[in-house]
Amino acid sequence: MSDFLLQDLQNMGAKKVCLMTDRNLAQLPPVQTVLNSLVRNNISFQVYDGVRVEPTDGSFMDAIEFAKKGAFDAYVAVGGGSTMDTCKAANLYASSPHSEFLDYVNAPIGKGKPVTVPLKPLIAVPTTSGTGSETTGVAIFDYEHLKVKTGIASRAIKPTLGLVDPLHTLHMPCQVVANSGFDVLCHALESYTAIPYNMRSPCPSNPIQRPAYQGSNPISDIWAVHALRIVAKYLKRAVRNPEDLEARSSMHLASAFAGIGFGNAGVHLCHGMSYPISGLVKTYKAKEYNPHGLSVVLTSPAVFTFTAQMFPERHLETAEILGADIRTASTQDAGLVLADTLRQFLFDLNVDDGLSALGYSKDDIPSLVKGTLPQERVTKLAPRAQSEEDLSALFEASMKLY
Amino acid sequence: MSDFLLQDLQNMGAKKVCLMTDRNLAQLPPVQTVLNSLVRNNISFQVYDGVRVEPTDGSFMDAIEFAKKGAFDAYVAVGGGSTMDTCKAANLYASSPHSEFLDYVNAPIGKGKPVTVPLKPLIAVPTTSGTGSETTGVAIFDYEHLKVKTGIASRAIKPTLGLVDPLHTLHMPCQVVANSGFDVLCHALESYTAIPYNMRSPCPSNPIQRPAYQGSNPISDIWAVHALRIVAKYLKRAVRNPEDLEARSSMHLASAFAGIGFGNAGVHLCHGMSYPISGLVKTYKAKEYNPHGLSVVLTSPAVFTFTAQMFPERHLETAEILGADIRTASTQDAGLVLADTLRQFLFDLNVDDGLSALGYSKDDIPSLVKGTLPQERVTKLAPRAQSEEDLSALFEASMKLY
Repeated sequence: MSDFLLQDLQNMGAKKVCLMTDRNLAQLPPVQTVLNSLVRNNISFQVYDGVRVEPTDGSFMDAIEFAKKGAFDAYVAVGGGSTMDTCKAANLYASSPHSEFLDYVNAPIGKGKPVTVPLKPLIAVPTTSGTGSETTGVAIFDYEHLKVKTGIASRAIKPTLGLVDPLHTLHMPCQVVANSGFDVLCHALESYTAIPYNMRSPCPSNPIQRPAYQGSNPISDIWAVHALRIVAKYLKRAVRNPEDLEARSSMHLASAFAGIGFGNAGVHLCHGMSYPISGLVKTYKAKEYNPHGLSVVLTSPAVFTFTAQMFPERHLETAEILGADIRTASTQDAGLVLADTLRQFLFDLNVDDGLSALGYSKDDIPSLVKGTLPQERVTKLAPRAQSEEDLSALFEASMKLY
Repeated sequence: MSDFLLQDLQNMGAKKVCLMTDRNLAQLPPVQTVLNSLVRNNISFQVYDGVRVEPTDGSFMDAIEFAKKGAFDAYVAVGGGSTMDTCKAANLYASSPHSEFLDYVNAPIGKGKPVTVPLKPLIAVPTTSGTGSETTGVAIFDYEHLKVKTGIASRAIKPTLGLVDPLHTLHMPCQVVANSGFDVLCHALESYTAIPYNMRSPCPSNPIQRPAYQGSNPISDIWAVHALRIVAKYLKRAVRNPEDLEARSSMHLASAFAGIGFGNAGVHLCHGMSYPISGLVKTYKAKEYNPHGLSVVLTSPAVFTFTAQMFPERHLETAEILGADIRTASTQDAGLVLADTLRQFLFDLNVDDGLSALGYSKDDIPSLVKGTLPQERVTKLAPRAQSEEDLSALFEASMKLY
């Protein structure tokens, strides 16, 4: 892998490379291989290993400062979604040095300006199988001042190249494989059931103002369904046996495939509701094991029960892919059928029994709802509009799953 | 459509646009709409309507000269594969004015140099549903000196944007819909059964030397299968009823989808053998109706009978998508099952009964074989190597289909 990476860098004319990663991964083979290769080939580089898992505006700024000072002509991001997203932001603001941080942040928190400056090449090397960030033009962070997740979204920040090497996934603990796999599962389900691109409003008056998340469309649908089939076939195997290279390779590809899909179509309620869940949880023991994927999937039975009335055929179709027998199911049952299928899927994988297992109780619902409301960027892509009462009911229904 | 096209051009900073098309289409709505929009918005442009259907090196050179003189900063190609391919070549050589024509032409006929110069933006607007050229980095032409089809292949010449507007397909005569649909059918079947990317040799030592056609791979497979499903569902409807917007829209997308697939994976024997078929035919009455698609599909039953022993499961899978009942079929029968399915499919669409219906007889087989031999660019992507005797037998088996 590292030889190709090096040649690609040379083909891009890179003379001074920024390698971004996190402190943990910096000691592990995926980063060490790249480092050795850069050293051996006399390519000038600097390492930034200060990436924060679940980045914030503060951690983005730190990486941006590093990038500005370094005046790099290419970037390599080795890690999970946090690393790739941080690197996208660093590349963007170092290429647009006179911009304020909020210029490119999604409205209404930021100004959501279109990116018109040219960026440097960025090669993304994912080491988890979940975010698909190597394929998307999105960089997500916690905006600490408002205690809200938001992001930067523009196809201009999409990595030039993704090196999807399954060997990087063999070191992942089972819990990380499961939780990042749930992220893939929800990327696929949410993008496939998102509001169709031609029903989204407002329709931008100029193509350059099209949002990164355009609603479901004939291209994203293909990726969503295909990724879902892989999840159905391989996720359990990938979780249970770290040596199952076929399963782990397939999930690594599924992560990229679902990324191509949701990176165009968008996600909706599971993701919108996940941000306060992972932001507010204090007590959960496994917080280090990619809480994002878990926060996303725990509401999925409730969410798809709620959304199914809009596109029941799609909900039934995905239930069937995940193993349900839908021969006698009516479209009216679509939500319940998919929800039951998801519960069984999560139960088989020993997933915690709902938000209560993360330490949440009914008393937390108002804050969870409050934390969801600013996530309009994604929640408005849901096929069905939600009132605050709807959101309360969805959180309540997600307290226990089984 | 034309408003988006215009805004996209403006977003690209276009000040002097080259509009390429052919003389027939220049009078028709797809081109007229673009023209009116350019005029109305005061964008400086020149029209080149000298595109030759089935382009040659001579016709490419003519368009290249036009492009060089015009010093354009953006291109719009409105038409079928011939127009889009001509425009790709014009953009390439006008952007690389000191190159010899053969520099970028595929080896061994040309030098096959990698493209390292930056090209101008090119927006491709397909008006037929077959070539998928709006999605590929390939431009095919007849090299008249050697009487052989060859091309230029580099992702650098891939259009910046494709505007796949189904309304452009409603004017197509049924025969053109059928023949261009056969091109889609074969793009899907050939790319899905092409030699896998990791079995192709030689493996390039540097990623920049990767050929445009890399062999079948997990990404091209998705597009091939999906395009095939659409062909199975919609081609007959699209041929039979010009008003069937759903069917014609679906085939227009299928053309682009299959293009994304084969543009990465490549095609093999049906295409390799088609070039002498369409090049040598003199008498066929419907030559004007996209003979390419017909030349491609007439050998398909013989070709897939021949190739099936290598990847029989894929041959059975595609037969099932096209309507075969494969429950009792063995992998040994895979080729025959797919061939029978294709024959039935072609019979249902009133396709001419084999190469003999195009005026060919056994006596022509040596010249057809001779014309196929230089097509190594594609024939070596077949999953099974072919001797001259094999090629003779394939042409002979394609003389009559039913």
